[in-house]
Formats: sequence, C-alpha cells, structure tokens
Amino acid sequence: MFKKILIANRGEIALRIIRTCKEMGVKTVAVYSTADRDSLHVRFADEAVCIGPAPSKDSYLNIPNIIAAAEITNADAIHPGYGFLSENAKFSAICRDHGIKFIGASPEMINGMGDKASAKETMKNAGVPTIPGSDGLIADVKEGKLVAAEIGYPVILKATAGGGGRGMRVIWKDEEFEPAWDSARQEAGAAFGNDGIYLEKFIEDPRHIEIQIVGDQYGKVCHLSERDCSIQRRHQKLTEEAPSPFMTEELRQKMGEAAIAGAAAVNYEGAGTIEFLVDKHRNFYFMEMNTRIQVEHPVTEEVINFDLIKEQIKVAAGVPISGKSYFPTMHSIECRINAEDPNNGFRPSPGKITNFHSPGGHGVRVDTHVYSGYVIPPNYDSMIAKLITVAQTREEAICTMERALSEFVIEGIKTTIPFHLKLMQDANYRAGNFTTKFMETFDMNL
Amino acid sequence: MFKKILIANRGEIALRIIRTCKEMGVKTVAVYSTADRDSLHVRFADEAVCIGPAPSKDSYLNIPNIIAAAEITNADAIHPGYGFLSENAKFSAICRDHGIKFIGASPEMINGMGDKASAKETMKNAGVPTIPGSDGLIADVKEGKLVAAEIGYPVILKATAGGGGRGMRVIWKDEEFEPAWDSARQEAGAAFGNDGIYLEKFIEDPRHIEIQIVGDQYGKVCHLSERDCSIQRRHQKLTEEAPSPFMTEELRQKMGEAAIAGAAAVNYEGAGTIEFLVDKHRNFYFMEMNTRIQVEHPVTEEVINFDLIKEQIKVAAGVPISGKSYFPTMHSIECRINAEDPNNGFRPSPGKITNFHSPGGHGVRVDTHVYSGYVIPPNYDSMIAKLITVAQTREEAICTMERALSEFVIEGIKTTIPFHLKLMQDANYRAGNFTTKFMETFDMNL
Repeated sequence: MFKKILIANRGEIALRIIRTCKEMGVKTVAVYSTADRDSLHVRFADEAVCIGPAPSKDSYLNIPNIIAAAEITNADAIHPGYGFLSENAKFSAICRDHGIKFIGASPEMINGMGDKASAKETMKNAGVPTIPGSDGLIADVKEGKLVAAEIGYPVILKATAGGGGRGMRVIWKDEEFEPAWDSARQEAGAAFGNDGIYLEKFIEDPRHIEIQIVGDQYGKVCHLSERDCSIQRRHQKLTEEAPSPFMTEELRQKMGEAAIAGAAAVNYEGAGTIEFLVDKHRNFYFMEMNTRIQVEHPVTEEVINFDLIKEQIKVAAGVPISGKSYFPTMHSIECRINAEDPNNGFRPSPGKITNFHSPGGHGVRVDTHVYSGYVIPPNYDSMIAKLITVAQTREEAICTMERALSEFVIEGIKTTIPFHLKLMQDANYRAGNFTTKFMETFDMNL
Repeated sequence: MFKKILIANRGEIALRIIRTCKEMGVKTVAVYSTADRDSLHVRFADEAVCIGPAPSKDSYLNIPNIIAAAEITNADAIHPGYGFLSENAKFSAICRDHGIKFIGASPEMINGMGDKASAKETMKNAGVPTIPGSDGLIADVKEGKLVAAEIGYPVILKATAGGGGRGMRVIWKDEEFEPAWDSARQEAGAAFGNDGIYLEKFIEDPRHIEIQIVGDQYGKVCHLSERDCSIQRRHQKLTEEAPSPFMTEELRQKMGEAAIAGAAAVNYEGAGTIEFLVDKHRNFYFMEMNTRIQVEHPVTEEVINFDLIKEQIKVAAGVPISGKSYFPTMHSIECRINAEDPNNGFRPSPGKITNFHSPGGHGVRVDTHVYSGYVIPPNYDSMIAKLITVAQTREEAICTMERALSEFVIEGIKTTIPFHLKLMQDANYRAGNFTTKFMETFDMNL
C-alpha cells in the first residue's frame, strides 16, 4: 500500500480523498493555491504545500510545481480527483516518469478516451452501441451534409476534444448546416486548440445514464450499476441519483454488460464511468468515457455501501478485485450546492459564509470543504457542498432530501438550495418523469 | 396517519423525531423550557410552545403543561422520546384519557416492565432466561442471606424501581450482607420513593447486549438484532455498536427468539428493547425491558437501513408489521459526545460553543441540536451530539470513527471527543475484547 498520497486538487474532492486516506492509514499531502489557504482540505491533510497563485494554470494545472511538491514530501502516489489534471495524459506520463503512481488512467488510455471520435470507434469495435454518425472526423461541409442526409436529421456536431457543451451544435435541416459548422469549428478551436469536428444522429429528449466501472491490474472489470444525471442546465449536472427511475432489470443487465465489454477491450485499470444516452424506447448509445472519479460518485457509494475512493487506491496499489458486479439495494440522491443565485440566472455568488450549519440525522451525508467564516474565492467552480441522501425507496430519499435542504444553513452568500427544494417538490421530478431537456422548461420563479 | 405530533422532549432526540415527522409529512409541535429556547429542536418544529422554567419538574416533567400544549395546538399524538415522561405510566394514561395517542407503551405495560421484580417474573414465565435470584422482593436481611447462600456468592441487590445504578450493591460474602442491604434500601427510597429490593446472582464480567424489538397492534413482534452497550462508566453508556463483536449466529438466533417470546407474552406494541447480560460462556440473562426508543437506536438503523422512529409512528397509527426479523448487513458505532471533561472525572462542562463544525463524508452521521454560538444550559444531561459511523466491517467503522472524531470541531467547552479518540485506538477495544468492567481499568490519562 502507498505510504503517502499527494492530492492534486482542491475543495470537497480533495477533502473526500483525504478522509479515505486517513481511514486507510495512508499519509496525505494537500496542495493549494494562495486563494485556497483556508480550505478544510488544507487543514485536514497531514502536510500542505502551496503551489502558486489563484489562476489554475499557475497552481492546480502547474505540473512542475505539483511534481516538486510530491518529491519534496516523498509522496509515492498522486490522486488527481476530477477536473484539473485528472484526464491530462501528459501529467499521467510525467508521474510515471518520476516513479510516482498516478491514481487514474495511463496516458495511452486518457488519450484514447479523450479523443471522442477514436473513443467511439474503440467502443463500437468492442460491441458497445454507439450513435450512428460520421466515420471519425468530418473534413468539410460537403462531406458533413452527405453523412447527415444518410443518417437523417436532426444531427449534432461535436468537437473531438470537447466537453461542457462547447463546440456542439444541433442541426435540424440541411440549410442550417454551414453556419453551424463554421461556429462549432471556431468555438472548438478557441476552447480546446483543436477544431476537429465529428457528426452524430441527434437523440431527442434522451436520458443521461452512466455506468460506474472498476478494473484492476489483472484484466478483471466489474460494474457498479448506474447513475441518472439527466437533470442538467447547459450540460452542467445539478442533481444525480442511483438507481435511475427509468431503469429496468433488463436494461441494467444490458448496459452493465456493454460497459464491462468496453472497459475490458481497453484493459481499463481504475475507476471509470461510461456515459450513455438512453432514448425513450430504452435504446442506449455510448456517449463518452471518463477516466477518473466523478463528482456524483457518492450516490453509487450509498446504494451499494462501498467506498469508491478506497477502491481506486487499492486497485492502483495492485490489489485485485473479485470481478463481481454490484447492484443497488437502496436509493440515493445528490444535490450539488453551488454558491450561485438561482433567481438570477445561476450567477456565481462568491464571498464570506457568515453562518454555516450542516443538516444531519438518518440518511444524510454532507461533503464540503467550507465552514462558518470561510471566504469562497471567485476563482473556481462554484460548488461548495454536496448533499446526499439515502433511503429504502426513491420517494423516501426525496423526502429526506427536502428535509435536509430545509435544515441546511448557509448565510452570507446565495446558494442553489432554493432551486433544489423546488426541484424536489416538482411533480414531474417526483414521478421520475424527466430527460436532459427537463431544465429547459423548468420554471425558475422560486 | 397522525396529522400533528407533539414531541414531549428536548435536545437531539426531539430533533431526531421532528426530522422523521417532516419526512412523513406530519406536522410537529416542539415544547421547550426557558433554558432551551435556542435549541434546534425549537427552530425546526412547525410550532413551539414554552412549557415552563428550566427545572424538569416544571417543564419536561410537567404533565398538565404538556397536555395543555397538545390541546392548544391540536396535536393528535405525543412522542415522548427517551427519559423524562417516556416510561411514566401516569402520563401514558393521561394521554389516553385525553384522546391523544401516546407513541410508546400502555400504562399497564410501563408498570409491568418498570417494576423490575415483576418484569423478571413475566419474562421467566415466557421462557426467557433470567438470573437466579429471589422470588420477588426480599423482606429482610435474614431472608436475603438465605437466598444468597442458596444461589451462592457473589450476589447483587437491586432496587425494584431502580435505574442508573442507584440502589444496587454487589456482595461477595455473607458478612458484607447487612451493611449493603441497609445502604441499598436507603438509596432506593431516596431516589425512587420505593425501597423494595430484590436479589440476584452477580454475573462477573458480563457483556451488556440488548435486542431491539418492534410489535404492532395485531400481536406480531419482530426483532432487529442486537446492540452491544458494554462500554459504560458508572452504568452510563459511552459508546455502542451493532452487531456485537461477541455475537455468533447461534447466539443471535437464541437471543432474538427469547426477546420475541418475552415481548409477545405481554402483547407488546411499539419499539422496545430487552436488555441482557451475557456471560463469558455466552449464557444470557434478562436484565430489563425498556418500553421506549433508546439513545443508541441509530446503530441499529444504520446496519439494517431502517428508520426506527418512523416505525414507531407507523405502528402507533395502526400500520401492521410483516413480522419478519432484521439482521445486520453492516457495522455501526455510536459515540456519545458529551459536554464533559474526560481529563477531569467527566465533570460537566456547560457553556457557550464558540465554534462548531460537524464531520462529514461517507459513512458518517451526526445527530445534534447544537451549533456555533449555542449556549449549553447546565440543567440537563450533558450529551450534545451523537456521532455514528457505518461501514462494511467493524475495523472500517472504527477507522471512520477515528477520522470523524478528529474532524469534529467543538470549541468553547470541553467534550468527550478526546476520550472516544483514545478508546478507538485501544488495542482491547479494537479487538472487541471488553465487558462492562472495561472502563474500570481504562487509563484515562489522555
């Protein structure tokens, strides 16, 4: 087992990883930017190293500073969390070159899955259902229009290096093609330094359902069932749950098998997630593979009674898995509590938290790095807490979430708590009747 | 189902009950003494009624004031929590007379189980193993000595109305009998207004293991397996766990059957606990039955994924149970966080909490009515929070507890957190090697 793990991240996920390391008896090193010196992840680690000023490129994305911190503190492994360097092939390679275990995917795997067109090809070859579309990148408008005519409108253009909705355009008819193509390429080039674009059949009103998988160093892969992440605003997940209210035993079986086949085809090692779009007929299509822990991993942990971060660390250290898959016995919901004003277009609301009190009691979990008196810096993602509930049924998990949201005290800033309270009371949400389009028609007048 | 429940209690258990009522869509009425006006149980209830000044006899034990509060607010049920009026037969009867459902035992049941000598007789007749001893109360020293000689020393004198260790005396040889008898009677008379004393074989180095049971209004009873509460100081439980590290499948089967037989014999309705002493040969003996929810109920909830307060409310409202018993699938530990100084004889430490931050993350539950800025009144029991962890194994639940205790910030007062941290690191505790004598030799030099 590792002696000391450096956590190359910040906020709640850094604290989440530190907690599991403590429970495993593994020492921890936090890194932090000058803006984050008062975060709980810095206070709760055994050691903490400042790696630069607030802009991420100077600290959380500064590879030389992070490697130096690991060498100075004699860390034998680095956990990258999510975001930042968690899917950076160069960082994974540099860790390997320095004899530091990267608790994540190999550079080859990250490259293979990071390039969306090649990832799709890999999955297709492994027998995973994929969305009909172009055979790799599209060269020009003429080729694009031909493919679109072949598979039928609506279609969607996607940036091969993309993420977060950038470089994506839905096209409903032939004459919309050229302007959409031009703007997608331009946006992709600016955002990712790579303007490669591919094309797919556009799945109307799908659900976003993802399968958690874990692979070990000896070729065994298991799945840990699904999470439903359909409640999104501009491709940002707001709340997630496990199991999916849309799931059937048969569909879980098929999606689980597909996810394992896809991961096994690339000898996947570690925790990963295969994201699928599921249409109303319960056809499912590979969307992308994330080679890291996800923000929403706790809902899986709660329904199968399992510590996913511990599992990541164990497989990275060479511990074999049994290969047996896991099925949910409970229902869990996560609400991302963001420092944003839901009545004002979800505008970020950084600043000082003047009063903070967590909800508690049966079925309630809180993951947060903030506290009374903490000043939320304006430099980062606005998520300040994850509130997770678990109960025997979906209805009960929703009731517990309503109760916990109503108890949560965060004063001094605006938060998304009022939005989540309203969501929990929405009749369609309660009925499990929603797709990724849900938020487009959700009435935000709170 | 009830429309509105008045909670005739304070602190964490009042809040615990309010939480479940909220999740069930049942309105709540808090009652409070003037000393408790700032407690979270008052803030989180739908309505709150002040029932008098700080001394419990003038508020939490003041039956007319509590009944008046229920009538004014139109509450159709009263949940008494634990302590205070929870095992007061008169209160249970008065609720019944006023057409208010008492969420607890009937007056007859409370009387039957509250008198320890008659409770023992009842259990013996139901086939539950009991400790050899006197046939009811002892008349005088002469009779006591005869019985003691018959069953053999050591023996223990107990107050029939007793609790909390008062009126109890262990006697190792004949010449100690008379002084022990005199002081036990005197203490019992002063504490309970009843100096009735019975005698039992003294079980050396036993474990305190109790079985949770639930009975419905139609004669069905099930058990929810055991809790181990052997870690006690002066008969006050400090930490509890489920399952017991001393338990075997066979013993659980036998104790569960005995508990069900005992409860069924008295047509028990509601949640109750049958406490047993278990000797080193795994013989078990009925100690007492508590006709209420216990402080340590959360460890049962966590290992069987079950809301015991919800179950109490449901059976009180006439919902039938399946009759199927529940067996633990996880391991859970509870530490009672008291406002006491463990380095100074556990002396109470009331006062202002200047900073409070709960631990969080996977496997951690916190039940508390306090917060940053709250002033702990000196009038009540010193428990200010219950910290509960749950994991797949006992070892992991201990590691999570250590981690959570180390994160728990409570400033301004002394707490028992340092004691629990030391306990979690104790080799005998970790090995599950302890009896009710454990604390007598535990080194408190922290």
